[in-house]
Amino acid sequence: MDSIIRPIEWTGNSLRLLDQRKLPGKEIYVEISEPEEVIVAIAKMIVRGAPAIGVTAGFGVALASCKVSDKAHGEAVNYLKKFCDALSKSRPTAVNLTAVVERMLDVIENIQPHESISKVLIEEANNIQNETVIADINMAELGSGLIPLNSTVLTHCNTGPLATSGYGTALGVIRKAWELGRVEHVFATETRPWLQGSRLTLWELKRLGIPSTLIVDSAVGHIMKQGYIDCVVVGADRITANGDVANKIGTLNLAIVSNSLGIPFFVVAPTTTLDLDIFDVNQIQIEERDPREITEFLGEPVSPPSVNVRNFAFDVTHNDYVDAIITEVGIARKPYANSLKDLIRNG
Amino acid sequence: MDSIIRPIEWTGNSLRLLDQRKLPGKEIYVEISEPEEVIVAIAKMIVRGAPAIGVTAGFGVALASCKVSDKAHGEAVNYLKKFCDALSKSRPTAVNLTAVVERMLDVIENIQPHESISKVLIEEANNIQNETVIADINMAELGSGLIPLNSTVLTHCNTGPLATSGYGTALGVIRKAWELGRVEHVFATETRPWLQGSRLTLWELKRLGIPSTLIVDSAVGHIMKQGYIDCVVVGADRITANGDVANKIGTLNLAIVSNSLGIPFFVVAPTTTLDLDIFDVNQIQIEERDPREITEFLGEPVSPPSVNVRNFAFDVTHNDYVDAIITEVGIARKPYANSLKDLIRNG
Repeated sequence: MDSIIRPIEWTGNSLRLLDQRKLPGKEIYVEISEPEEVIVAIAKMIVRGAPAIGVTAGFGVALASCKVSDKAHGEAVNYLKKFCDALSKSRPTAVNLTAVVERMLDVIENIQPHESISKVLIEEANNIQNETVIADINMAELGSGLIPLNSTVLTHCNTGPLATSGYGTALGVIRKAWELGRVEHVFATETRPWLQGSRLTLWELKRLGIPSTLIVDSAVGHIMKQGYIDCVVVGADRITANGDVANKIGTLNLAIVSNSLGIPFFVVAPTTTLDLDIFDVNQIQIEERDPREITEFLGEPVSPPSVNVRNFAFDVTHNDYVDAIITEVGIARKPYANSLKDLIRNG
Repeated sequence: MDSIIRPIEWTGNSLRLLDQRKLPGKEIYVEISEPEEVIVAIAKMIVRGAPAIGVTAGFGVALASCKVSDKAHGEAVNYLKKFCDALSKSRPTAVNLTAVVERMLDVIENIQPHESISKVLIEEANNIQNETVIADINMAELGSGLIPLNSTVLTHCNTGPLATSGYGTALGVIRKAWELGRVEHVFATETRPWLQGSRLTLWELKRLGIPSTLIVDSAVGHIMKQGYIDCVVVGADRITANGDVANKIGTLNLAIVSNSLGIPFFVVAPTTTLDLDIFDVNQIQIEERDPREITEFLGEPVSPPSVNVRNFAFDVTHNDYVDAIITEVGIARKPYANSLKDLIRNG
């Protein structure tokens, strides 16, 4: 089986996305030629994972610029600004999306009337993808050294190639550590309600040939208490200046439990995930998604009609629980308010 | 809507079970006339919940005795002993099942040749159900006093009428506290993989008119950290002499998280759940169920083919995390090795 996974590909004038909602049953690629469809693809989670959303957003703006290449410069810029505004609202929690949109807006603002807008923006989108891939490789190199020898590692949600379009964040570190012979086995949670773990992470782990076991989310306490797990490695959707980590719902459970049992808890995220303007986690908007993700399965109800639901997609893990934050420019340790700032300054 | 829920009814010569696998979509009752079908009903979870399994097992033996009422005494006793042996193996973790089987065996051993075996065993099975219902009411009365005023309570799995055939254990306490105006709202986990929470607990809570909200299992850390929850109330499948609690997988997470955040954690279980012969939790066999409960949904695969799975049905919560164990004869507090013994002695 081909071990190379290409969830996001720019074809030259369209965007090809692996439809992650259909995995692992079907490997279906969606070709997107209309910029508005990129917004839908992010909101409906054809593509997900904070870095992958960022890469997709970059190509979304590139695609939009192709649509206005024959328009007057001012008109084109206005259209692109409006598009960027809508795009940045497609999902609220991951910072990468807003960061990429701001970066593209910055380029748009500075394009000269004589330049080809689409050429410049396609190049910038390609740069974002390339930087993401390189960041993944650097995180994997740096982070794999933290994984104890002969480890069994626990991870949550999906943080592999599907989540970044590169090597992966947390799963990239795990993969590298496995290649180096440090990791023996990976436990992955199914990650309700969207099942990123059972559907995507297990699919990636099998494709990469890494020995792995699937558990329900609520079994994390049991397997840690029973001594199965040597360390926990997860990704992040947004990290505050203090090192508080917004990530997939359930991350906080893992952090509290591993902390209370003395098991190392590592976060792997590129510096694009850092939001150093935010000190207070309450400034992070926690996305709540459609209740039907929980109350239905394949359109079939699994709870009584009109039941009340809170479908929080993310939670915030206080920095106290985090033993290290692994970025592409270095590893940050407590106190994070200093170490993260230093990383960015020197990185 | 009728608020009375009758999951287990003895008709006089057969056992009528509400098929809990079909809820909440369909309210289907299965009439069982063959004793072997009782074993299947327990193993396949047509009926589940430690006390309800005990009640069902009692009627299972009663049903078996009806089949041999025309046989010679010795032959009938031999058949019943063999049946009891098979019955006790239908599920491994809950102690109520073994306790009920032993109680029925005790009666069988002491039946006199001139007595009607079926009459005696039907009466004993009815006694077990009646005692279960009365224990539920006593636990509800005792436990409701522990619930803080104006509480929002978090519970896990299903511990209501469906789990006991009476008032419920943890959910009985919550219901009583709600009737007394102490509980304002109940958060219930969906409880993967079998969805006892979304399918059964939400169905019961709606039927009882108690305001409730459904969350995924992994959201328990988030809602506790966000201050939604005033106390956690769960049931138990087996409690050791030290007060260690075997219960639905995920209970240990709840216990560690609530403990670390200073939120009271209460266990509600009848004394039939106590296994005072066991001091070491490693003596408790943790049932592992069919991986397909996790890898498939409605027969549809949700993970790659031939994925490795550990489907632990239960975990064990160390007594340190437990603020009180509420039984029908009193409330036990730390140290449980003393308080549980005292309860049984004085109860």
